[in-house]
Formats: sequence, structure tokens, C-alpha cells
Amino acid sequence: MSKLVRFGISMDGRLLKKFDQMTTEKGYSNRSEAIRDLIRDRLVDAIWKEEEKPVVGTITLVYNHEIRELSDRLIDLQHQFHNRIISSLHVHLDKHNCLEVLIVKGKGKDVRHIAERLIGIKGVKHGKLLTTTTGKELF
Amino acid sequence: MSKLVRFGISMDGRLLKKFDQMTTEKGYSNRSEAIRDLIRDRLVDAIWKEEEKPVVGTITLVYNHEIRELSDRLIDLQHQFHNRIISSLHVHLDKHNCLEVLIVKGKGKDVRHIAERLIGIKGVKHGKLLTTTTGKELF
Amino acid sequence: MSKLVRFGISMDGRLLKKFDQMTTEKGYSNRSEAIRDLIRDRLVDAIWKEEEKPVVGTITLVYNHEIRELSDRLIDLQHQFHNRIISSLHVHLDKHNCLEVLIVKGKGKDVRHIAERLIGIKGVKHGKLLTTTTGKELF
Amino acid sequence: MSKLVRFGISMDGRLLKKFDQMTTEKGYSNRSEAIRDLIRDRLVDAIWKEEEKPVVGTITLVYNHEIRELSDRLIDLQHQFHNRIISSLHVHLDKHNCLEVLIVKGKGKDVRHIAERLIGIKGVKHGKLLTTTTGKELF
Repeated sequence: MSKLVRFGISMDGRLLKKFDQMTTEKGYSNRSEAIRDLIRDRLVDAIWKEEEKPVVGTITLVYNHEIRELSDRLIDLQHQFHNRIISSLHVHLDKHNCLEVLIVKGKGKDVRHIAERLIGIKGVKHGKLLTTTTGKELF
Repeated sequence: MSKLVRFGISMDGRLLKKFDQMTTEKGYSNRSEAIRDLIRDRLVDAIWKEEEKPVVGTITLVYNHEIRELSDRLIDLQHQFHNRIISSLHVHLDKHNCLEVLIVKGKGKDVRHIAERLIGIKGVKHGKLLTTTTGKELF
Repeated sequence: MSKLVRFGISMDGRLLKKFDQMTTEKGYSNRSEAIRDLIRDRLVDAIWKEEEKPVVGTITLVYNHEIRELSDRLIDLQHQFHNRIISSLHVHLDKHNCLEVLIVKGKGKDVRHIAERLIGIKGVKHGKLLTTTTGKELF
Repeated sequence: MSKLVRFGISMDGRLLKKFDQMTTEKGYSNRSEAIRDLIRDRLVDAIWKEEEKPVVGTITLVYNHEIRELSDRLIDLQHQFHNRIISSLHVHLDKHNCLEVLIVKGKGKDVRHIAERLIGIKGVKHGKLLTTTTGKELF
């Protein structure tokens, strides 16, 4: 299925040494994997820039569940986009604060729109979108 | 418990108009909420810069579950940090690709370290850390 | 010419206190100015997302001037885009390394293209694009 | 002086193809250079995280020169930090708006502080810091 290609790259020895130090600290098992990660990260950015391509995002929301009707509003909005939101996870951070993560799949611009709508709900203290992909175009 | 404060700010009318347009598009119900969101977002960044403060992060990993021993390695590493990882969510994106989100709580530098270790595992196609907080210091 | 508008916003007192602390540390003279800066920063991001709008970028390049023909290649490429590049500044960081900043005006996608082309030249050690605007739509 | 090292890395052929497409679009002359750029970019980020290391930043400011005493305040503040600010470039974007770029050298935390102080001046419409290095540790 997958065909591994091997190729050579050249680099100043001092640059390579610094890179090896950094990746070892981060726990990388080998140099190839660290370089592949840099490449894949850049590809994900490029895919998200083309707003029509299918991507995946995780939306993280922090909010106080005691705020009246906030949970209702969050659920309602999520149901509006139910065909894009694959799944969600909820944890109780303390007596008042919850964190919810939603996994959303769709066109880049749609995922972004869903994130903006959820983050914009009054009572959501903090919300952010993390951009990734289905992994299909990453090898 | 919470005490609402009201204060006035001044702004060029044209700047305000542009801001109102943008926040309406994003679905904000009112101007105060949009401004509070900008402020809270900046505070979260500041808290993460002080590496010793307790924060929350969500780590998103995309990987091919068919890679030999990858699931084992991911589970093993997660158990090493079990007292920091609150919960995790797993979805099957397609026949080959999985997405896993982990919610991690701890000092900023520790959460970052856990993210780097997980992202560095060979076979993880894409990994990223999203930085937020417990919400305790956001109002 | 410019019409100042004054309006009230409400906020939890503790959030406001934290924001005031942060902005005082950053040297802001008053709260209104700090909030206006958050708003303008977000607007600049929005303008750059619409790739057809006129914007301004500053491109920073670090390179070793001793590399053969590098200066020639940089100059040649800059002349190709001479109607977009307004001005440039060059400093000698040490015996080997130079830093050059170019101010570029044009459509977002064109400015991005010029940055990519310059950063991609062999011998440029580090290059980055900073996104801003002509200020015309910021008040 | 510099010693070039050559080493092999392995990669799924499809990932490599996608990477080659992206870098060709960006105008890279060869694959090694594109990979070196990814590595150097990551190293610059790492150096800036260690706040005590010497780095270089370029600060871009957009402002309306007609605002009373703004130029004075900018000049005064720049002179306070004259031993860090190497050089600056000023362009007239239109009748009202100016753009100024300052090249600043020093410890990461000091360069950040200077940027915050300048950006915080009332009347500066937009300001941002771009983080790079002297190039000495990049090869």
C-alpha cells in the first residue's frame, strides 16, 4: 500500500546538531520522524487555507455551567450542526467550570463558522479552534 | 459572588462600526461579550507564558490505528502521565485514521511536555496542543 | 473628520482587574486604548483573510551576505516586484549576518507570494512575513 | 569553516510528493533548502522561548502622524532604548498614515518589552513584533 521513499538531504553540520538536540528533548525517536512532523504540520496549514477542502477541527470551550440557559444554548447550536459535529467530550474542571471538546468535520470555512458561533455564545469564557485534518492526505 | 462593573470606553465611530460588523458576522449577541472574549483570550496567553501556573490544554492527535504497537505506545505514555490527563475522546475518522483528544491539567510547562512527547511518537501523523485554562481566573 | 463615540460595556469586576493589571504592565496609558488595540488587531487579521483586499506586510530576512550570488538573487527578485515593494532597510548584524526588512503593499495574496518567493531563496537563513494594513481602515 | 553533512531520511512517497508540490509553488529551488527552512523556523521559536538568549526582533508600527505629540512620544521612547534599537525605517503610506519598522537586538524578554511599550502608545493604530535571530546560530 504505502511505498517508503528514501532520499538524501544536506545540511550544515551545526544546524543538524542543534536540530537533533531539540528533537531529542521533545522525545523523538529519530530524525526522519521529526522532519516528517514538520512537513505534515505545514501541509495541514496549507489545506486549511483552501477553504473548500474537507478538514477536521477540535473546538475547545470553557464555561460556567451554572449560567442560566447556557447549556441549552450550547446544545441547541450543536444540534443545528449535528451532521458536522462527530462527537464531544465534557469534563468538570471544578465546581463551576466545565470544559467541552467537540470534534467537527467538514469544509474549512464551515468548521470555522461553527467554532465562531459556539465561541460567540454569551457565557462561554474561552473558546478556541484547533485545525487538523482527517489524516487521509498525511502519510 | 460576581460583581458586574460597568464602564465607558471611547472609540472612533468608524472603528466601532467595523468591529460591530465583524462580531455580528461571528454571531455575537452583543458588543460587551465580544470585547470580553478578546480580553479573556489575551489573558489566557499571558497565563500560559508563566510556565509555573496551572492551566488546561487539549491535545489532538491524528494517527493510523493499523500501525503496529502504536496504540500500545500511546496508552503506555498516557498512563505515565495519568495524574495529569483528565479524560480522552477517540473517534474513527475513516477505516484507517483515528483522532484522539486528551484533556490535560497541570503546570504550563508540564502540559507542554506531555504534548511534545505524544506528538513525537512515531506513527502519529499530526498532533497539536490547544492552550486554555481551568476558567477559574476568567470571569 | 473623526467622530468619537462613547459607549458602556459591562464586565465582571475581577476580569476587569486582571485586564487592567496586564495592560498597565504593558505600559498602556488607559483602558480604552488597550481595548481599541485588541479590536484593531482582530480587524487586521480579518482583512488579511480576504485575499483580494489591499494590505501592507513587512518581510524580514536574515542571511549571510558572503554566500555567492545571494545578494544578486535577492535584488533581482525584489526588482521583479518593484511596484509592490515600497522600501527596504538593511543592517549588518555581525561580520557575516545581515537583516533586511522590506515593506510591501498590495493584495494580501500578492504580498504573501512575494514573501514566499524571497524566503524560499537558497541562502536565506530565516524569513518571515508580518501582516498589517495601510491603517486607512483602522481608526 | 562550515561543514556540510549529508544524511538520508525516509518518507511515504505520497507525503514527499505533496511536500514537493507545496515547496515548488513557494519557489524553492530544492528539497533540502525547504527542509532546512522548516528546521530553522522551529529553532528560532525555541530560542525565543528561552527569554535570556540574545535575539533580534522587528517591530512594525502603523500610525497617523497628524496626532499631536505622537511622533515626539515615539522618538522619546526609542531613545530610552537606543542601545537596543539598531535602526529604523519610515514610510508614508498615504497622506495620514505612516509605517515604521524598528530593528531591535537584545534578550528576548527585553525586545518583547520594548515592543509592548511602543505598541501601547496612544495613537499607534497597529503594532506587532516579528521574532527572528542574529542568524549566528542558524546555518
